[in-house]
Amino acid sequence: MDEFDLIERYFARLGAVRDDVLLGVGDDGAVLSSGGRDIAVVTDTLVSGRHFPVDMAAADVGYRAAAVNLSDLAAMGAAPCWATLALTLPAADAAWLDGFAAGLGAALDGAGCALVGGDTTRGPLTVTVQMIGALSRGALTRGGARPGDRVGVTGTLGDAAAGLECLAAPGSAAATYLARRFRRPTPRCELGVRLAGVASAAIDVSDGLLADLGHLARASGVGIEIEAARLPVSAELVQVVGAGRARELALGGGDDYELAVTLPPGAAVPEGIRLIGAVVAAPGVRCLDERGVELVPQCRGYRHFA
Amino acid sequence: MDEFDLIERYFARLGAVRDDVLLGVGDDGAVLSSGGRDIAVVTDTLVSGRHFPVDMAAADVGYRAAAVNLSDLAAMGAAPCWATLALTLPAADAAWLDGFAAGLGAALDGAGCALVGGDTTRGPLTVTVQMIGALSRGALTRGGARPGDRVGVTGTLGDAAAGLECLAAPGSAAATYLARRFRRPTPRCELGVRLAGVASAAIDVSDGLLADLGHLARASGVGIEIEAARLPVSAELVQVVGAGRARELALGGGDDYELAVTLPPGAAVPEGIRLIGAVVAAPGVRCLDERGVELVPQCRGYRHFA
Repeated sequence: MDEFDLIERYFARLGAVRDDVLLGVGDDGAVLSSGGRDIAVVTDTLVSGRHFPVDMAAADVGYRAAAVNLSDLAAMGAAPCWATLALTLPAADAAWLDGFAAGLGAALDGAGCALVGGDTTRGPLTVTVQMIGALSRGALTRGGARPGDRVGVTGTLGDAAAGLECLAAPGSAAATYLARRFRRPTPRCELGVRLAGVASAAIDVSDGLLADLGHLARASGVGIEIEAARLPVSAELVQVVGAGRARELALGGGDDYELAVTLPPGAAVPEGIRLIGAVVAAPGVRCLDERGVELVPQCRGYRHFA
Repeated sequence: MDEFDLIERYFARLGAVRDDVLLGVGDDGAVLSSGGRDIAVVTDTLVSGRHFPVDMAAADVGYRAAAVNLSDLAAMGAAPCWATLALTLPAADAAWLDGFAAGLGAALDGAGCALVGGDTTRGPLTVTVQMIGALSRGALTRGGARPGDRVGVTGTLGDAAAGLECLAAPGSAAATYLARRFRRPTPRCELGVRLAGVASAAIDVSDGLLADLGHLARASGVGIEIEAARLPVSAELVQVVGAGRARELALGGGDDYELAVTLPPGAAVPEGIRLIGAVVAAPGVRCLDERGVELVPQCRGYRHFA
């Protein structure tokens, strides 16, 4: 665990105690009771040179800043409503701002979310977006998985980690596809809303599948076993990095912004979810290959590439 | 006008158009219709070396980060409910984090606001707080002032600007008082809630009185005349900088986080408000001294001291 993951304890119980805080610090977002309905609040910061390359196109920075927050809302089962932007940037460069606003706007538009406010300050490039979403059927959390549940994921995994490596010079159609998966992740907003009331637990895959399933398993007090053969990997990923490395990136590579969910035994598997394993009582997350041997990928889950 | 003030136009209308956005980008906060009641959303970023000295105590940084957002909520007439924190910091220093959390917690506690989530990332020290407040009697905005309204302010003005200058070595009881006014501003939360439905317009004094009244006057399409003799200045400010400079700082110094409001002709003046002038039809903000001569302070309104 990164030392920064421990910082959460400083902020776990700060400020007033309020009855309308249904879920506070520690999940993908907070759940609050507001005027007769529940809302989810999420926030994510992107730091230049840490969460994205310093020379990444401004439009991609803007798009990603919205997408990572939309993904958090999706993991809560919340429909995106409103966003605020706290943008710190070194200079008021019109071309950069045009691009950034276009990318941010595209991601927000696609999710039905309005930008309603913000603050722009001068300093090292840092982008914080905060979003509020509406919960109509209760929130998805990390803590509801039970032994016997099945584990599923959306989309394909590992693409963004490989895409980051070929971002500057993709060189092939497959590599261009992977680079786009890093630059323009697809938050699973509609699927997240459909999963509310269906899935027993959910998290978005930002740190890497094993790392994020680890968060979910710990929060639920369970363990998870997944089958390597079931991991969804794209043809493009296999083409660019080979089947073995593809499996490693699917387990350990971050930045995909897919959803990982657990489904109770009786529940139908929603369209868009691929089953990859099961919830077990023994703690820990294990991935077994076709021979039943545990895979320990060389790359650990990560989010900060720098 | 700073070039950064112009950046707002890039973000004025981004993302989806939603009926539940009652007031978007451009005021102290947004006003949103959420489940049968209105809420206000505000966000403010503090950058180290720009909004506070790089060596300011961590507890004061945490306190200020909450206080400037509480002040924005007060200017909207909203009761503070929930906060999120996006903290970017260079290293996970336990002593710094203890202090920061204590200061942040103290400011939140005092306002009845709960910290419900956040994101901590590694990078140059930048603190973004976002807050949500409840509106029970409609929002205060910058745009409702009308000719004939009276203009009032809370507290005393100019203290924080002088306090910043003597922050490192106050040297006297009066200077210590002023330094504390910079380090620990008093957001006018309860008064802000009481002003909702009473004041015709409001703004918090963060950039400096003339600058902030300018924002309010422009948003309302009016002008404002204030009387220098009525400006509330503390005895400590006069003691440290003299009467003339005190008046200048009261007009141009930022960071006080008091409220400036306009009151319709018939309204009783709420306790805690001092009348300093009147709303007029001709645009612009003027301050007249005892002889009717316009004062043009040497220090312009500012917020970023670096």
